[in-house]
Amino acid sequence: MTEAVRVETDSLGTIDVPADALWGAQTERARHNFEISGTPVSRFPAMIVALAMTKQAAARVNARIGHLSADKADAIEAVTAEIIGGAHHDAFPIDAIQGGAGTSLNMNMNEVVANLANLRLGGELGTYDRIHPNDDVNRSQSTNDVYPTAMRLSLVLAQHSLSTALTGLADAFDERGEAFADIVKLGRTQLQDAVPMTLGQEFSAFATVLREDVSRLSEITPLLLEVNLGGTAIGTRLNAPRGYAPEAVAELAGISGEKLVLASNLVEASWDMGGFVLFSAMLKRTATKLSKIANDLRLLSSGPRGGIGEILLPEMQPGSSIMPGKVNPVIPEVVNQVCFQVIGNDLAVTLAAEAGQLQLNAMEPLIAYNLHSSLQLMERATVTLTELCVRGIRADADRCREHLDASVGIVTALVPVIGYAESARLAKDALKLGRKVAELAVERGLIDETQAADLLDPAKLARPQ
Amino acid sequence: MTEAVRVETDSLGTIDVPADALWGAQTERARHNFEISGTPVSRFPAMIVALAMTKQAAARVNARIGHLSADKADAIEAVTAEIIGGAHHDAFPIDAIQGGAGTSLNMNMNEVVANLANLRLGGELGTYDRIHPNDDVNRSQSTNDVYPTAMRLSLVLAQHSLSTALTGLADAFDERGEAFADIVKLGRTQLQDAVPMTLGQEFSAFATVLREDVSRLSEITPLLLEVNLGGTAIGTRLNAPRGYAPEAVAELAGISGEKLVLASNLVEASWDMGGFVLFSAMLKRTATKLSKIANDLRLLSSGPRGGIGEILLPEMQPGSSIMPGKVNPVIPEVVNQVCFQVIGNDLAVTLAAEAGQLQLNAMEPLIAYNLHSSLQLMERATVTLTELCVRGIRADADRCREHLDASVGIVTALVPVIGYAESARLAKDALKLGRKVAELAVERGLIDETQAADLLDPAKLARPQ
Amino acid sequence: MTEAVRVETDSLGTIDVPADALWGAQTERARHNFEISGTPVSRFPAMIVALAMTKQAAARVNARIGHLSADKADAIEAVTAEIIGGAHHDAFPIDAIQGGAGTSLNMNMNEVVANLANLRLGGELGTYDRIHPNDDVNRSQSTNDVYPTAMRLSLVLAQHSLSTALTGLADAFDERGEAFADIVKLGRTQLQDAVPMTLGQEFSAFATVLREDVSRLSEITPLLLEVNLGGTAIGTRLNAPRGYAPEAVAELAGISGEKLVLASNLVEASWDMGGFVLFSAMLKRTATKLSKIANDLRLLSSGPRGGIGEILLPEMQPGSSIMPGKVNPVIPEVVNQVCFQVIGNDLAVTLAAEAGQLQLNAMEPLIAYNLHSSLQLMERATVTLTELCVRGIRADADRCREHLDASVGIVTALVPVIGYAESARLAKDALKLGRKVAELAVERGLIDETQAADLLDPAKLARPQ
Amino acid sequence: MTEAVRVETDSLGTIDVPADALWGAQTERARHNFEISGTPVSRFPAMIVALAMTKQAAARVNARIGHLSADKADAIEAVTAEIIGGAHHDAFPIDAIQGGAGTSLNMNMNEVVANLANLRLGGELGTYDRIHPNDDVNRSQSTNDVYPTAMRLSLVLAQHSLSTALTGLADAFDERGEAFADIVKLGRTQLQDAVPMTLGQEFSAFATVLREDVSRLSEITPLLLEVNLGGTAIGTRLNAPRGYAPEAVAELAGISGEKLVLASNLVEASWDMGGFVLFSAMLKRTATKLSKIANDLRLLSSGPRGGIGEILLPEMQPGSSIMPGKVNPVIPEVVNQVCFQVIGNDLAVTLAAEAGQLQLNAMEPLIAYNLHSSLQLMERATVTLTELCVRGIRADADRCREHLDASVGIVTALVPVIGYAESARLAKDALKLGRKVAELAVERGLIDETQAADLLDPAKLARPQ
Repeated sequence: MTEAVRVETDSLGTIDVPADALWGAQTERARHNFEISGTPVSRFPAMIVALAMTKQAAARVNARIGHLSADKADAIEAVTAEIIGGAHHDAFPIDAIQGGAGTSLNMNMNEVVANLANLRLGGELGTYDRIHPNDDVNRSQSTNDVYPTAMRLSLVLAQHSLSTALTGLADAFDERGEAFADIVKLGRTQLQDAVPMTLGQEFSAFATVLREDVSRLSEITPLLLEVNLGGTAIGTRLNAPRGYAPEAVAELAGISGEKLVLASNLVEASWDMGGFVLFSAMLKRTATKLSKIANDLRLLSSGPRGGIGEILLPEMQPGSSIMPGKVNPVIPEVVNQVCFQVIGNDLAVTLAAEAGQLQLNAMEPLIAYNLHSSLQLMERATVTLTELCVRGIRADADRCREHLDASVGIVTALVPVIGYAESARLAKDALKLGRKVAELAVERGLIDETQAADLLDPAKLARPQ
Repeated sequence: MTEAVRVETDSLGTIDVPADALWGAQTERARHNFEISGTPVSRFPAMIVALAMTKQAAARVNARIGHLSADKADAIEAVTAEIIGGAHHDAFPIDAIQGGAGTSLNMNMNEVVANLANLRLGGELGTYDRIHPNDDVNRSQSTNDVYPTAMRLSLVLAQHSLSTALTGLADAFDERGEAFADIVKLGRTQLQDAVPMTLGQEFSAFATVLREDVSRLSEITPLLLEVNLGGTAIGTRLNAPRGYAPEAVAELAGISGEKLVLASNLVEASWDMGGFVLFSAMLKRTATKLSKIANDLRLLSSGPRGGIGEILLPEMQPGSSIMPGKVNPVIPEVVNQVCFQVIGNDLAVTLAAEAGQLQLNAMEPLIAYNLHSSLQLMERATVTLTELCVRGIRADADRCREHLDASVGIVTALVPVIGYAESARLAKDALKLGRKVAELAVERGLIDETQAADLLDPAKLARPQ
Repeated sequence: MTEAVRVETDSLGTIDVPADALWGAQTERARHNFEISGTPVSRFPAMIVALAMTKQAAARVNARIGHLSADKADAIEAVTAEIIGGAHHDAFPIDAIQGGAGTSLNMNMNEVVANLANLRLGGELGTYDRIHPNDDVNRSQSTNDVYPTAMRLSLVLAQHSLSTALTGLADAFDERGEAFADIVKLGRTQLQDAVPMTLGQEFSAFATVLREDVSRLSEITPLLLEVNLGGTAIGTRLNAPRGYAPEAVAELAGISGEKLVLASNLVEASWDMGGFVLFSAMLKRTATKLSKIANDLRLLSSGPRGGIGEILLPEMQPGSSIMPGKVNPVIPEVVNQVCFQVIGNDLAVTLAAEAGQLQLNAMEPLIAYNLHSSLQLMERATVTLTELCVRGIRADADRCREHLDASVGIVTALVPVIGYAESARLAKDALKLGRKVAELAVERGLIDETQAADLLDPAKLARPQ
Repeated sequence: MTEAVRVETDSLGTIDVPADALWGAQTERARHNFEISGTPVSRFPAMIVALAMTKQAAARVNARIGHLSADKADAIEAVTAEIIGGAHHDAFPIDAIQGGAGTSLNMNMNEVVANLANLRLGGELGTYDRIHPNDDVNRSQSTNDVYPTAMRLSLVLAQHSLSTALTGLADAFDERGEAFADIVKLGRTQLQDAVPMTLGQEFSAFATVLREDVSRLSEITPLLLEVNLGGTAIGTRLNAPRGYAPEAVAELAGISGEKLVLASNLVEASWDMGGFVLFSAMLKRTATKLSKIANDLRLLSSGPRGGIGEILLPEMQPGSSIMPGKVNPVIPEVVNQVCFQVIGNDLAVTLAAEAGQLQLNAMEPLIAYNLHSSLQLMERATVTLTELCVRGIRADADRCREHLDASVGIVTALVPVIGYAESARLAKDALKLGRKVAELAVERGLIDETQAADLLDPAKLARPQ
């Protein structure tokens, strides 16, 4: 049985389109040209929403300045509102990895909006006499300005949930940090025993480092708000009516609620990928931190008997098909892997950004693909780490104490009193003899009992002053 | 309405499993623990097939050496054959990016095989008294040996279609190279006019460079054939019967038709990711070449009026939403992007490989994810480039001739006759005066007409001797 | 002949030190432990200067709060001033790639300052009874706070010259842009002929994109100003007197003239590498832009006869050992390579940043090495591009006009008048027939002569309105 | 005081050259054009040697086929022999990061050889009437064939010392592995206690993994032996006499002692960077392994009291400026950092390889720079790790035993006897109660005392069968 089709025509000739498809000829060509990743653009709903918003803004401004009839503008307004609301996303089937610098997705939107608007005006699918994809929906626009504008806006929209997730993780670390505030333990540098701290300090540092990234993300993201909407093909504003650009940007800001501004040099803004590179780097920065945190959780929970074992992670699944009773840190492990992927994705973004030529960067779709993938991956990993791991972490206070008591790092506190060289001898001997630093120091007459109690109390050392 | 469930029990307690699921408790836990990428492992069918082959091989050997009853072995044989044949892949829902070093996928397989085998033996889903996932299906095995073994085998199986695709692309370039064998044109180095060559030489070089990669891939891939099957948990062969390892490997080689061999040091082979790193690098190498070729196709077809324009790519879709008549090199562009992604994926593989610790690398699932993704992406991009671009490339012989005639690079041929310094003067003057090198050389008495005709014929210069 | 030596002692025992060396035992050990890159830390003078400033700040505060005698403080003040002024840098011979998280460089500084101060107080080299490297010079400090503080400060100091260089390059592009303001030419997207623009627009876009990076760099750099000075070993302030941390930071800010602030969470600040990751990413961002610009210069100057050839780069050196008269774009080529190196260095920074563990990141020296290398490379490449290339670029206005006249992209301007579909037919026919768009449009009665002159004037199209 | 100069002339005009310089005009131009990295090409002596060998081979063949007089050939033979022997390397001052695709280095060699040969023939510096850099020394050659040929050969020559170093490290691990053969300890997967092994197994696995890389390196390196010598400018053999190419390659093979072969497609071989990409990836592969090994050494020696502490690294230097007695794993730390740099360098190589265009890759100098840097770094790091760390590692057998006795992983051995589920219950209870698995199993009647002694002996479990 053959699928029912309708025939459409574009400048390359005719092509069969599925009879009930909301898209048209150019989308259909692109579907077949790009059978690449199997991931449709609709996997990233913010892209669809942001592009629909851009079309809506254009229609409003075109109507206002007399370049689009009220009827047409109303129809476009209505159907873009539906798409912004989440409808019709399955009409965007094109592969997320595509050639053409986004033209296929832009035409997909133009065709879907035109078809929906035509239906609304009494027309039928595939007949563009009432509303034309290029002449009406795309009016005053080029892919080269609307696509990067929509990319930028979509990332601004999508990153909110990552920020929320990271803040949630920071909250969880802070909560655990407070619960562990009085557990004194050994600090470690270069994996070697150092000086005392509290487990609370260790956990609240995780919270701090994440909150800093939420702040940095909120500072870097606005760099995406500078858009080239109205620059059209190469930034010279060809075919955009006088005054269109600032109005369209203002309109889009209103629709989206994000503080978009018009780039000062539209020729430059047509090809400049700098904002994406820095945004990607910001995600990479967070990935390096999340991965370090995941590593620390795995180190601190190593054992249970033959490792550090100072904390216990929630048991999420049996750890081994052969070793009964083994439980592994599977959640931190998946977080590490997501972080590695985000770092790899950042490289793909970098390569794509470097590959721009003359007035355009044709590799933008890969940038969109990787940034949205990374946002989704990190948001999921962060929520998973929060809910399935951090909230349930318990401390083994006895083990913390045991390590601290066995170590000689507290000798550091004697340096201001007896000097570095004498302290070093004391530390070596304590280690060799298996003695406690305090005892040995008193025995050797370096300090007296009172000083020992005062200077070498780990709890005080963890929080001097 | 609630989904019907059955209750299963594992060492962490009870858990609800969908009533008709072929998987069991541990798969169900993993489904919820890893909601990360949205890509199920079944997206990479070779992984499922290779793991099922491993289970089949284990069952045969266990039965042969008396560690599994004939009944059980027969049941396992039958159901793994179904899975190898492509059935039941939707029973592998776990996210491809997962913690646990592959334990979840291994248990997913153990549970599906156990359930299918139990059904076959008259039992029912979720009741493992006839065939137990761990004690029977996983017998003599650990995730730590079967998972990397299946990863390796799956890549060996999956790379065949990439090789085929690359060879197809090389064939297409050779076919075009032959068609263009007599088109003499300007060679270019550093984007500057150099000396004559044929368009055929240019295209057959693309074929050569790709065939070399097919050869290299066929040399690198066998490094994956060395497996640690039988090493069990950490390579010490604990719980594998005497003689099990070599027999299991031989059995798996027989089942798969691939020349698997047992690693000589199983402790090392349990954590060594070197084969994956080199395989990934090989894909990256091919990506750098494909990307360079795509760039060349875009350069050579640039224009049509304001660029090099020596070749014409097939027109695949209208190129612009605003510029009528514009047609873009969308297929090479998508190839570039795939190559960038493969290079990014290689970095993720590298990071994961470096992150192994002590007796295992827990990041293996990310390695599998990226290598299979890259294989699929490159295979698709290669076929797309072949079918939708290279086969249809046409030459603009007039333009080739025009560029050649205008250039002065043929002066190089005079160096052995009149020396470098004199030739340089001649070249500069010809450029400045807009004269042809041959004319000017004769006019200056540096060579005579006969020499000019003999020494400076571009067609001869393109193929000296 | 044997080199004259003196014998020094540290906690590991005795060691021979060159008799006249300003350094001591620990530096000598490190010299032999790290024979790795052949690049001494003194290759990056800002590191030496910043660390000396940190020592000076510490001595002042220690003296002020009574933890160091005035004599000692005065001596330390004097010798650190010499080092800050550029003296004694050859006394820092340790390899820039070193283990120990910077301890060797910190001890190198402690030893050099102690020896110089001892000499000043009448002592002799290698005798630390007057001023002790650890007890006096390093007082209230740990490598773990002074080393990252000095790294951060050194980068802030060193990046000024990169900003200056980038601004100089932007100025040169603006100057050329103005000179080329009236040269109308073909704009290109996806390497295909697009619509008209001016060469001036093309060049001033380069200036804009670089100025944006100077701005971003000036926003990202301050993230390095948050330091953990006073946190000592792990951020708990152990052995730093009450009130030391904020005073030391304020003092260092005064000495350096940079607005340093004390981190709010010193435990976190001891291991957080986020500022370095983002700073490195900022350099990478600039690299992607510089590389794109270098690529554009090479494309636009390609030829001279068989390429685009719209601009001419200054001839810097004969281009070929075999092809007389060939001149290559050697300056943009070296810029591309520097950019690739900076991107590679960014990866090394990323890997090092991810590798922190628990209370410290032991890989900091590699981060310092790569960031300072990248700063130096980019600064040199930028100045080279400015002086030896951009300032001397000339335009080939005839060639610009020729490409423009031959192209059909101006048909775009007819879309609002005759619609996209009709315009596309016109463009195709003009290309096929080798006719001009304006002529054909008038001939077909689509527009009249007046409209043609008005709508299709390239100079107007380059700057609509 | 002004430096004495002589005036030389090339096709761009006159230029002052230091009076006593062995180089000439083009080298002098390049010195000033490329003030970039501060690293002269002579930092990589193998490059100078290999290029001199190429010149020697060319002179021999040119003389043999009558294109160079015997006098000239003899002079060139003599001076290249000096350079190959290590003389005159300071006459190669050009920056290792340079534009021009290697032309500057090739001309540097042509000029130095010409000047030395002229001196030998009674001429003076800067007068090329006896021997001309282009017409004689560079005869039958282009930078585009001799430079990549020399790059390839130089890497083949230079990698031998890395192989030797890696083998030395493997030997050291094997030696330690034998010394530790009877120390039974806990194996760990995912940082969690697993099943017993010996410390000897752990160390000999390091040896195995390194020896594999030596083997792989010896398989990958020969890919560099396929050269394009004789292809001249773009692979068409222009200006190379009939039969020159195979003879020149054979001659170079004889001179160097390496099995060079002529590429089958010289047009392709002129731009193909695949061999370098794979060679770089091979270094990266080794880096991931060395880094993992360094990580393991740091993990196993963590403590001494609050970590795993099963091995003790030699004490190389005091570890802290503030914490007396602390000793850090500084040698593994520097190894990690070198590995990160090698991975970063591999990315730079990848970017450069991808950036080839049409008939040449102009970024070859950066590839040479990074590959030689990585070879040197890894060789130094490997020797350092061998001599200053691995040879001196000692085991803490008591601690190994302690961890093993405390763990419950040996329960795995009971799975074939009592099943996975029962074993899991036993393991959990043993952990919770702090009991030993064997005791509890006997107490519960799961096995008898004899079985316990037989099945659960860790030494047997570490080496089953």
